[in-house]
Amino acid sequence: MPFTLNELAEKTGSRLSGPGESVIASVANIASGQAGSIVFVSNPKYTKYLQTTAASAVIATEQMLIGCDKPALVTEHPRVVFSKIALLLNPLPRIQPWISPHAVIAEDATIDPAARIEACVVVQSGVSIGPGTWISPGCVLEKNARLGSNSRLFANVTVGENCWVGNNCVLHSGAVIGADGFGFVWDQDAYLKVPQLGNVRIGNDVEIGANTSIDRGAIGDTIIENGVKIDNLVQLGHNDHVGEHTTISGQSGLAGSVKMGRKCIIGGGVSISDNLEIADNVTLTGRSSVANSLKQPGVYASVIPVLEAGKWRRILARINQLDDLAKRIKALETKNHNRNGDAL
Amino acid sequence: MPFTLNELAEKTGSRLSGPGESVIASVANIASGQAGSIVFVSNPKYTKYLQTTAASAVIATEQMLIGCDKPALVTEHPRVVFSKIALLLNPLPRIQPWISPHAVIAEDATIDPAARIEACVVVQSGVSIGPGTWISPGCVLEKNARLGSNSRLFANVTVGENCWVGNNCVLHSGAVIGADGFGFVWDQDAYLKVPQLGNVRIGNDVEIGANTSIDRGAIGDTIIENGVKIDNLVQLGHNDHVGEHTTISGQSGLAGSVKMGRKCIIGGGVSISDNLEIADNVTLTGRSSVANSLKQPGVYASVIPVLEAGKWRRILARINQLDDLAKRIKALETKNHNRNGDAL
Amino acid sequence: MPFTLNELAEKTGSRLSGPGESVIASVANIASGQAGSIVFVSNPKYTKYLQTTAASAVIATEQMLIGCDKPALVTEHPRVVFSKIALLLNPLPRIQPWISPHAVIAEDATIDPAARIEACVVVQSGVSIGPGTWISPGCVLEKNARLGSNSRLFANVTVGENCWVGNNCVLHSGAVIGADGFGFVWDQDAYLKVPQLGNVRIGNDVEIGANTSIDRGAIGDTIIENGVKIDNLVQLGHNDHVGEHTTISGQSGLAGSVKMGRKCIIGGGVSISDNLEIADNVTLTGRSSVANSLKQPGVYASVIPVLEAGKWRRILARINQLDDLAKRIKALETKNHNRNGDAL
Repeated sequence: MPFTLNELAEKTGSRLSGPGESVIASVANIASGQAGSIVFVSNPKYTKYLQTTAASAVIATEQMLIGCDKPALVTEHPRVVFSKIALLLNPLPRIQPWISPHAVIAEDATIDPAARIEACVVVQSGVSIGPGTWISPGCVLEKNARLGSNSRLFANVTVGENCWVGNNCVLHSGAVIGADGFGFVWDQDAYLKVPQLGNVRIGNDVEIGANTSIDRGAIGDTIIENGVKIDNLVQLGHNDHVGEHTTISGQSGLAGSVKMGRKCIIGGGVSISDNLEIADNVTLTGRSSVANSLKQPGVYASVIPVLEAGKWRRILARINQLDDLAKRIKALETKNHNRNGDAL
Repeated sequence: MPFTLNELAEKTGSRLSGPGESVIASVANIASGQAGSIVFVSNPKYTKYLQTTAASAVIATEQMLIGCDKPALVTEHPRVVFSKIALLLNPLPRIQPWISPHAVIAEDATIDPAARIEACVVVQSGVSIGPGTWISPGCVLEKNARLGSNSRLFANVTVGENCWVGNNCVLHSGAVIGADGFGFVWDQDAYLKVPQLGNVRIGNDVEIGANTSIDRGAIGDTIIENGVKIDNLVQLGHNDHVGEHTTISGQSGLAGSVKMGRKCIIGGGVSISDNLEIADNVTLTGRSSVANSLKQPGVYASVIPVLEAGKWRRILARINQLDDLAKRIKALETKNHNRNGDAL
Repeated sequence: MPFTLNELAEKTGSRLSGPGESVIASVANIASGQAGSIVFVSNPKYTKYLQTTAASAVIATEQMLIGCDKPALVTEHPRVVFSKIALLLNPLPRIQPWISPHAVIAEDATIDPAARIEACVVVQSGVSIGPGTWISPGCVLEKNARLGSNSRLFANVTVGENCWVGNNCVLHSGAVIGADGFGFVWDQDAYLKVPQLGNVRIGNDVEIGANTSIDRGAIGDTIIENGVKIDNLVQLGHNDHVGEHTTISGQSGLAGSVKMGRKCIIGGGVSISDNLEIADNVTLTGRSSVANSLKQPGVYASVIPVLEAGKWRRILARINQLDDLAKRIKALETKNHNRNGDAL
């Protein structure tokens, strides 16, 4: 579904620079753009490619385009305009309502006629599925699960009993919503399971990555607010509450009862201990570990990047001596002080 | 299934304080308890809520209840009593034996008439399933897998060929038991796969979290002893051996041939290198890394919690200078010593 | 399928030492070998068992066998010879071509008559599957997925639309190939999804672990070259490119657009930030974090192994004082220098 540059400028609210008749059929990377494609630059270090790219048009800021005479869409937000064009040129497939004869659906499930249910999906008793929602093969919707409208579940997703997923959500393959939280108490000679009686409530416009696991609450619910985006292999524990528009990158894990603010940006491989509160607008860089509540917005970090192994071994030895080193500094300071005192 | 407070005291072996006639229908959090519910306090910082909670009754220690005139169950183990009551009020659903006509079951599989097999479950040749065991949709039991009695497999669980799961186990959705261990040797110009010939043996009363993966042994078996509790997204390598009543929290990983003791408590996101031995009663706090065997019981840690990013950058720069800093301390000490020597 | 020691020497290119008539029926660990089995030693610390093992024969280097009169296969590569023998004695099951009547297969899918498709597999439109490829129950092959020959997909694997898997690959249960990459841009008041238009291209002789997730490219493809071996619960982001014969151990994660070299060895639980380049022949020890490109081959590390928790707390306090400690060293040096200056 190609568009002219003129049309793309109008549809994305960007300003056309140069002729607008060329037809754009695809998006590309700045390094690999071909005739008929449009590319973007948001990182200044790639500005140099603007002039030489073989693409038919570019998307960039006014500043970046100084001295570039390529046909261009000018905007303060090149990535946003690019994403909109990518979607215009590659629209999501229109859902074809259908219930596969190979799906297994409880008699009392409520499935909107505009939903699509593929083969080997199992829909248990009391489930409801809204219009435009598309369930890929192998998904299991346990009793009384409720899915809103226009959501997409990719293959082999599990939505547990009584758990809810809102509208316009995307759940990638292998995601598990509503497994039991991890709760046990020691009782004399063995662990006793703490019943996990809550559910999972997922709002609208939420994306959940492949093989991510979101546990149900112990008492009360695990809550994912609107607009939250979660990557692959993430673990959310029982009774976590993730605020609107927070993003959580791959392999991060929140222990139980974490209250995470709005518009937080959680890097990959981050760990957050249980019962903590994280303020709105907190950024945690990749591989951070959080052991205390963070009451102030801001950027936090604790990762140690790699060194050559021999060098790291020497530093690690010093880390293990740190308490001793600090005491030796103290001793030197005391001697210095005494000598200076003597000198008076 | 409500009970009077009298009945609950008797059934849980706790002592009633105050009138015992009130009917308890639900459990709740101390902060959200309503009439008809019972709540508990185990953390002294919540003791203040005991008097003001709207719940009909509370569970706490004698000490905590001083000055509180709410109807109460008195016990040294409030969480244990609470969990027992939660289970009394919310009993697990009684399994309805059944084999779905949409399950695909090998002719020579042995399925106890008191088991339940849901739709889209595949049971291969030689599998045996004990009484009271309940297999949710989408599970795959490969050849000769053996499941004991009263175990529950949630959706989309895989149990590999020749692997065994005991009695009263719970395997959450997406768990994979018995994938090949990660074994390759370099042979001239490519890796050669080391055949993974062992199996997985899981004892009784074991819980395994969503999307957790437990590899089969290379030679000999991977062994999970009775009462072990494993959270979501955990990785256990080939020939690991986890001792009785050990708990492993989310996203932890054990490389191959780890011999883990009994009653260990492994926090979330812990890594343990291969071929190590961990003593009984070891606690590893969240995000610990273990690179050597731990022969003594105790608590071990190595995590660095986050700081504000600018502050962390300064500290990280100093970490990278640590070897130099240590040498400078040594140099200062030598000068001091020499000067003091001169002074004699 | 037992062999004589003579036959095994010939088939593995190793040298027989001692009589060659004994029949070998199984492989075993050095510690548990019984009559009829063969064992190997590659770690010198186990050499002591060579003489005492109950196994019928041993595999070791010339050096290790000094003073040992057991029947032996002599080789510089005991693990390679052992692996070859393990495979000779335990050959992979010969695939029985078959399409289960309980598989759901699109009319226009192309399935080689020598492939095997088990129950509850869903094969969508345009998929092609080569000869000798074996698809276990519960797998979902989305539109136009293409699988080569002699590959094995274990249970509940998902291969996304337009994604390719080569020949002689093994994908373990729960692996997800081709979920969307994690790409969003903030647009005024919410995140806009960046369409993920690329695919995943997996070469030949690749192994992918249980519940591992490999995202499709945003623009252009995510590429896994020939001979790559990936363990369980690994995350590969959009547009990652992993070079030939690189191995990645469990729970490691590569953010997006990482260019990983050939023959790298990535330990477990490693994190690599986005847009980095890793040279060929880089080894990253377990739990490393990589925040900058690594242009030189070599071994890199950054993990801090556990200490007893009290000791670690003291060291952690010192780490948090490091900037201050460094300044105090500087101050001491300045005083020393001044005093020495005074003394001149």
